[in-house]
Amino acid sequence: MTHILVTNDDGVSAPGLLSLAEVMSEVGQVTVLAPDHNWSASGHVKTMHRPLRVKEVQLADGKFAQATDGAPSDCVALALLGFVLEKIDIVVSGINPNANLGHDVTYSGTVTAAMEAAIWGLPGVAVSLDSPENHLGLLDYVPAARIASDIVIQVIKHGLPKDILLNVNVPYLPYEEIKGYRVTRQGLRVYRDQLDRRLDPRGRPYYWIGGKSPTGVPEEGTDFGSLAEGYVSITPLQLDMTAYQSMDSLHSWNFGE
Amino acid sequence: MTHILVTNDDGVSAPGLLSLAEVMSEVGQVTVLAPDHNWSASGHVKTMHRPLRVKEVQLADGKFAQATDGAPSDCVALALLGFVLEKIDIVVSGINPNANLGHDVTYSGTVTAAMEAAIWGLPGVAVSLDSPENHLGLLDYVPAARIASDIVIQVIKHGLPKDILLNVNVPYLPYEEIKGYRVTRQGLRVYRDQLDRRLDPRGRPYYWIGGKSPTGVPEEGTDFGSLAEGYVSITPLQLDMTAYQSMDSLHSWNFGE
Repeated sequence: MTHILVTNDDGVSAPGLLSLAEVMSEVGQVTVLAPDHNWSASGHVKTMHRPLRVKEVQLADGKFAQATDGAPSDCVALALLGFVLEKIDIVVSGINPNANLGHDVTYSGTVTAAMEAAIWGLPGVAVSLDSPENHLGLLDYVPAARIASDIVIQVIKHGLPKDILLNVNVPYLPYEEIKGYRVTRQGLRVYRDQLDRRLDPRGRPYYWIGGKSPTGVPEEGTDFGSLAEGYVSITPLQLDMTAYQSMDSLHSWNFGE
Repeated sequence: MTHILVTNDDGVSAPGLLSLAEVMSEVGQVTVLAPDHNWSASGHVKTMHRPLRVKEVQLADGKFAQATDGAPSDCVALALLGFVLEKIDIVVSGINPNANLGHDVTYSGTVTAAMEAAIWGLPGVAVSLDSPENHLGLLDYVPAARIASDIVIQVIKHGLPKDILLNVNVPYLPYEEIKGYRVTRQGLRVYRDQLDRRLDPRGRPYYWIGGKSPTGVPEEGTDFGSLAEGYVSITPLQLDMTAYQSMDSLHSWNFGE
């Protein structure tokens, strides 16, 4: 039976993790090892300056899970380095309550968990929900969980090439209204961060990275374009970030001239 | 005059930062904005859940610098979002006391600072020193600082293509013994992490991510290969991580079958 490690970056008590773990238990044997608190926008972390604690917790459905004080990528490393005794076959991370698109992938704890899996030679899938910015009330993760299940079944069937992970983003629509799947490239994120300078009660300045939520360019063939048209976006990402197309022009530079 | 932002991930008091800032001040106007503590293996971070503090500090050479409680990428964002009033032209990060090679680039705070620059449309250069594993005493950053200066002068002259940054690694050799420069691709890191389970004085387990330092495969044309032969490695990295070569095979999958 396929052994699936489920993790996330919002923490073990997040409803998106619960939905993902539930649907994955229909696909294979599930182990949940997730951070004990929220690590959003934490990037790819390897915690080596302090030890990690792990505690057993109970999810809302009564099943047991493991929670650590490490980052999402630490959870994957811990599990694969032997904290989880049974061999793991695939790592699935999410469901993140917000989309991870364009340049977000380098900041995203959800994506870096899947990246860590690829580094250790396992297939990794990151799943995020493109929920509306000002959504009130609980998010419905059921359609995205069904999509995640469809995709993980295909990954188990076909495998993933070495050093490749999948970044999946699901439109926030009822399952029947999702038009299908598209294999996409990373689109262009437009960040609208602003620096907000404030004074504390003692008159000393402090700074928030604030501003509006980022937008994206919904170009055809991209992750943004796919979601804008109501399709699930599946972006294969590679660990090799070499800009091969730039190597020739760099060869012509005269260093130390 | 070119305005150079200097940052790092080891913190504002690191000797590698001082060497870099000193040599950059011969190339242009320098502003130092760096973390107030070590952020090694921190990845690409955007701190939005808490405000950032900035304080003025004095470097060992008597010059003033700014230190924040944010991550390296936060330093770049802070500076570019307006904390630094004068327009910045280029971001240089380092000098990291250890090499950042292969898959290290996604964990590396040094590299993610240059990545953040690229996201904001500026040239970014990360500089790391391939120091020996068990080096005793102070590291000599002077050769690597001279190399950084040569490279930054070329980047200012030629510019970098959009969404491209340079990851520079310098062999730990006297300047005269460095054989030259090579434009390289990311090589293959071999991590040798091991999980070290211990018991605290109360008998409760905790876990260190330990093991031996990673090695690499010194294949020709790679960052590892270049250093092994005594050349500076210059790897152009791109923000677009899409695995274009994997898109066709994914198109043939039958999702939801």
